[in-house]
Amino acid sequence: MNLDDDIALALRLADAAGDAIRPYFRSVTAERKGDATPVTLADRAAEEAMRRILTAERAQDTVIGEEFGATAGKSNRSWVLDPIDGTAGFLAGRALFGTLIALVVEGFPVLGVLDQPISGERWVGAMGRPTTLNGKEVRVRACRQLSDATLATTGPHYFDDHQGEHFMALAAKTDHKRMVMGGDCYNYAMLATGQIDLVCEANLKLHDWAALVPIVEGAGGVMADWNGDPLHAGSDGHVLALGDPARLEDVVEALACGH
Amino acid sequence: MNLDDDIALALRLADAAGDAIRPYFRSVTAERKGDATPVTLADRAAEEAMRRILTAERAQDTVIGEEFGATAGKSNRSWVLDPIDGTAGFLAGRALFGTLIALVVEGFPVLGVLDQPISGERWVGAMGRPTTLNGKEVRVRACRQLSDATLATTGPHYFDDHQGEHFMALAAKTDHKRMVMGGDCYNYAMLATGQIDLVCEANLKLHDWAALVPIVEGAGGVMADWNGDPLHAGSDGHVLALGDPARLEDVVEALACGH
Repeated sequence: MNLDDDIALALRLADAAGDAIRPYFRSVTAERKGDATPVTLADRAAEEAMRRILTAERAQDTVIGEEFGATAGKSNRSWVLDPIDGTAGFLAGRALFGTLIALVVEGFPVLGVLDQPISGERWVGAMGRPTTLNGKEVRVRACRQLSDATLATTGPHYFDDHQGEHFMALAAKTDHKRMVMGGDCYNYAMLATGQIDLVCEANLKLHDWAALVPIVEGAGGVMADWNGDPLHAGSDGHVLALGDPARLEDVVEALACGH
Repeated sequence: MNLDDDIALALRLADAAGDAIRPYFRSVTAERKGDATPVTLADRAAEEAMRRILTAERAQDTVIGEEFGATAGKSNRSWVLDPIDGTAGFLAGRALFGTLIALVVEGFPVLGVLDQPISGERWVGAMGRPTTLNGKEVRVRACRQLSDATLATTGPHYFDDHQGEHFMALAAKTDHKRMVMGGDCYNYAMLATGQIDLVCEANLKLHDWAALVPIVEGAGGVMADWNGDPLHAGSDGHVLALGDPARLEDVVEALACGH
């Protein structure tokens, strides 16, 4: 699969989204959707900007966006967009949110971009290529035992009680003094950059994780569901990322103890 | 109290700390202290750099640093330094940590600097002056009712069980969909900049919060302990920050319900 043209397009999508988002950062009037998830004018403007480009240049492909839903195409390819992953963090003024752009082919992500338009950091991952941060290759780090692992999650309030018990069982076996909360997609980028070892989340949607798979795996890590199985478009939203794939069995086992 | 010379000095301390820290960001070999709190070479290098300046130019003042403890002086003035507040976040590669520099006179902070040396953001607060971010005045935002408040805390793992129950009682009365975790000192800066409404933490030491009081209060907010009483050098580490001082009674009442 030659992804050169798709990568070039994804970078232009990220440019367009960043241009749409930056004016709203720390100046946004927040509004609410029906389900009370925070959403911003920036979110919509960025998705519209990306959809305009995709409509013009990839009319045959499906587009699935966090804000405006799915527009079915005729190919086996889907562009999956989350204009602002980490809306609560965005609203709180943190430059840890990201624009996520994935190309998913037959249910599996083959290309992912995470763009942070305030700090100017951009991670690009694509099947068969090394992941880059602003053009420079990044790598995960080794993690010899679970008790050495730095774990990240956006917040315990994103788990239900049952999920929270499993998460706590895992957290107890990691280096919990170094555990970090918050961060959304940025945690996966830090894992791909060798700064943390493990991310554990639940209730994620395809647009929350699809772009992260090529980024994490192109840096030498692995993503999976809480059973250790590969993620695909039909996965149930329980997401793990590990910098060191050798720890996957330990993580799945630790998670399973929480009940 | 004319603080001009002290502000100028504090800015030079922040410059020196930033120069010491930047080379280590995302490249640090972490080590551990006896209590397993993360600490880095950057932390020590930055505190040493600041102490060198204070020893040369403020020999009469006390210096209290997170890394190297207290050096008693002969005046009623103490410089309170936390070279890297948010060490776990620093180690995780996030530019949300801060160098905290406070001047405390007779137990009360009169001057505070929060410097983020990666993003280049610097907040300065001083008694009787408006708080600034990179030289530009910032202000808190109004919060008409507690259910509208965006709450931040670094993480539930920093509370003991009892504190956690009180925190949860408070969180339940805020706009918990927008709650953000992680962030350490940066949350207080975002509050002073009108991005969030409320920070609630426990087990903080003087060096964790002293610099934040002039920053938050110079922007129109208030800091207090969990009983709503003003913070002073002998406070017990239960810390609240509110963007809208009119909500203090509601917050103290909500916290008290958690048992």
